[in-house]
Amino acid sequence: MPTNSPGNSITLRIDARPSFTATSELTQAAAGAKAAITALDVVESRHDTITVDLTCDTSGPEHAERIRAAIEEIDGASVRAVSDRTFLMHLGGKLEVKPKARIRNRDDLSRAYTPGVARVCMAIAEDPSNARRLTIKRNTIAVVTDGSAVLGLGNIGPAAAMPVMEGKAVLFKQFADVDAWPVALDTQDTEEIIAIVKALAPGYGGVNLEDIAAPRCFEIERRLREELDIPIFHDDQHGTAIVTLAGITNALRVVEKDLADVKIVVAGVGAAGSAIISLLQIQGAKNIVACDRTGVLDPDETYEDAHRNELAASTNPEGVRGSLHEAIVGADVFIGVSGPNILGEEHIASMADGAIVFAMANPTPEVDPLLAAKHAAVVATGRSDFPNQINNVLAFPGIFRGLLDAGVSDITPEMLVAAAEAIANRVAPDELNPSFIIPSVFDAQVASDVAGAIVHVVDQARAAQSSQNAAHETSKES
Amino acid sequence: MPTNSPGNSITLRIDARPSFTATSELTQAAAGAKAAITALDVVESRHDTITVDLTCDTSGPEHAERIRAAIEEIDGASVRAVSDRTFLMHLGGKLEVKPKARIRNRDDLSRAYTPGVARVCMAIAEDPSNARRLTIKRNTIAVVTDGSAVLGLGNIGPAAAMPVMEGKAVLFKQFADVDAWPVALDTQDTEEIIAIVKALAPGYGGVNLEDIAAPRCFEIERRLREELDIPIFHDDQHGTAIVTLAGITNALRVVEKDLADVKIVVAGVGAAGSAIISLLQIQGAKNIVACDRTGVLDPDETYEDAHRNELAASTNPEGVRGSLHEAIVGADVFIGVSGPNILGEEHIASMADGAIVFAMANPTPEVDPLLAAKHAAVVATGRSDFPNQINNVLAFPGIFRGLLDAGVSDITPEMLVAAAEAIANRVAPDELNPSFIIPSVFDAQVASDVAGAIVHVVDQARAAQSSQNAAHETSKES
Repeated sequence: MPTNSPGNSITLRIDARPSFTATSELTQAAAGAKAAITALDVVESRHDTITVDLTCDTSGPEHAERIRAAIEEIDGASVRAVSDRTFLMHLGGKLEVKPKARIRNRDDLSRAYTPGVARVCMAIAEDPSNARRLTIKRNTIAVVTDGSAVLGLGNIGPAAAMPVMEGKAVLFKQFADVDAWPVALDTQDTEEIIAIVKALAPGYGGVNLEDIAAPRCFEIERRLREELDIPIFHDDQHGTAIVTLAGITNALRVVEKDLADVKIVVAGVGAAGSAIISLLQIQGAKNIVACDRTGVLDPDETYEDAHRNELAASTNPEGVRGSLHEAIVGADVFIGVSGPNILGEEHIASMADGAIVFAMANPTPEVDPLLAAKHAAVVATGRSDFPNQINNVLAFPGIFRGLLDAGVSDITPEMLVAAAEAIANRVAPDELNPSFIIPSVFDAQVASDVAGAIVHVVDQARAAQSSQNAAHETSKES
Repeated sequence: MPTNSPGNSITLRIDARPSFTATSELTQAAAGAKAAITALDVVESRHDTITVDLTCDTSGPEHAERIRAAIEEIDGASVRAVSDRTFLMHLGGKLEVKPKARIRNRDDLSRAYTPGVARVCMAIAEDPSNARRLTIKRNTIAVVTDGSAVLGLGNIGPAAAMPVMEGKAVLFKQFADVDAWPVALDTQDTEEIIAIVKALAPGYGGVNLEDIAAPRCFEIERRLREELDIPIFHDDQHGTAIVTLAGITNALRVVEKDLADVKIVVAGVGAAGSAIISLLQIQGAKNIVACDRTGVLDPDETYEDAHRNELAASTNPEGVRGSLHEAIVGADVFIGVSGPNILGEEHIASMADGAIVFAMANPTPEVDPLLAAKHAAVVATGRSDFPNQINNVLAFPGIFRGLLDAGVSDITPEMLVAAAEAIANRVAPDELNPSFIIPSVFDAQVASDVAGAIVHVVDQARAAQSSQNAAHETSKES
């Protein structure tokens, strides 16, 4: 049965006959229809009618309709309107463009605009590096999508993707004071997307690629990294990989196993799965078995796409063959970034002792988390209604805060690992337990810890570079 | 001699020896170097030193240097720092992206982002017209440039154009609550610009083209109007034309002449000049003589570019030939959107009685406004330090407010004329005089009057359309 969710919260405006029991009758009727009531306000009370706003979480539009019907069955009650709180929040969009300074008079105008602005323009024309100092490029990134792989909704196009991109921008600002702007492109042509993002680059200090289908997203990211001098980050890949690595790190601490020793089965080799595998390997994982819909990726097989061949070649050192169900037997770690309900309780039971299960398909995980918890030591999902939510919000705001603060043009694997460690280390040793392996998304410290970790990596690399240069100079001199 | 301007305002931080006359010595030295002092603050006062912030308008960097030198000549005084208030205002850019609602808890997160946002996405996927209701498209426009014709600075490129685009966005928000986002494109290829703006359109409710060189701007505007369903407005053309028409309308009221009767000479046939001519013709002007650098456009001549040929064919009914100086003899109106100092006092003297001179080249007008005023009845410029400033800020915020409010996809000539009339009519009959033909850019009513005029035109057109449809139905039935 689908569960009630605040994402499906509604407010019913109800006219009812006034009586001592009027409000309790309403709440009873709503509760009887399985509404999760979160608020009740008597808006108006008159001699013959009271008007009540009843707010509740539902499991979706049909459920809302059943709740409405249940209330209208009460003698004398009528539902005047049902408003959907999620839609109300979206009216007119979720972002505005705000001037940092107000133009109060002619003098302000002549500084922010003509004629004063001309000197600022010329300072940038003469030295392009001034753009990072004197324009929004300093703190602004583009959140770029083509609408081809939005959430679990698929290829719904750029206009329909906007609410997600706007939501992302809200999170960037709130968690890390990064100004993020949604760029939803009405094209799904790889070369055109690359050309457009390159053309837009003067106004941005970074690019967050979002919800672009694989394998297109790999090529777009690779090319933009090569051809632009601002950092390019594909959140579906690297954001997911960072938070997954953070969670796996702490889960392994709980079960006292070492990343280098464990057998890890990954289901799903799209954008997220590939990036997770790559980051786990960078951090020292050796025995990873990757599975797609057809089963285990086999190094001896030749696949149609280059990226599957690369994955097959770099994983599965023990030459496992067969289905996901066969591969998972004896595994220490399962990581799912695939689809709903591909595993049953028996498959989790077949894993090694102290098993770790990350079932991150959204909204329905690869295995029922309650059943998985019967056999696994640690269970994580992508959902907020179970413990251990693996949520990219833990990574992307702090990552870009750090990238912008450090003024870097490239993202290195060291930065990704450092970000994962910063997230993992937000869980103190005395807090760590099987139900708390990852900090809350509302832990205000996470973003600044991640940003600090990025800046630290950059500082170290620059110091190493300059001491290398100095050594080189010295050796030339001697 | 260049004049002092608040666009060149600086603050000098000065250490001086404390004495009864210390501050007056500083202001005397600055005034002696022709600084226009606007503020003096004693920041710190100690036994042996006082620290003073002296703020003044200058004519530019060299003048600032002379002021600094003059102050350092005072015994015991030293200038610790000179900060440029225009640059200070630009540090980090002039805009931020602000969430309209804060995410306070998990429930907010599940409405603004996953999982709740998915329902909003699907509502748009199922009915694309919901994008104007549920995303920032409702109130957001793109300010698009390729950096090829920025202010009077020329082809300085997209990065250097950003401060102007940001400034424009500030004005859009402040004067008309329109969310405007700067899009500075790193390409000057016409087809590529068209393709990019088309691809960006899902996120925007309108496009303001800005500082794109002619003739490229004409093609870009024309094609985007054809191929997109959101309004496209090239401010350098139509914004300038609207405010010019507003000013000319009131100037003609002052001299009691009629637009249909007057001889108008226009110098400059780029983006602005062409649009001005076209709008004047729509409003009833018959006798317009257009001049480029080589002189009067001649209907019998064949020009290299199509746009000059069209202009030549539609203007100059009396077959005037020769130079601008010859054409202006006996003219009632001169409109300059060309370059500095192309006319002398004698040319204004050669115009008809009650002459109107709009010398709008920036920062140096086509003719010295003080000399022009000796002979012309009304003189207007683009500058804020003379009366009658013809400033696009009077038009563009209200135009887009109206376009977004009315939800239109196309801009019609009727809208441009209505906007010009709304601006002209903000000057009440008892206010109208040769030095006040156009409202102040800080007249808060202008933008809403312009927006109202646009909405009114749209309402009328829709009413006419529906009564036409009704009549058509009736005639079919009968």
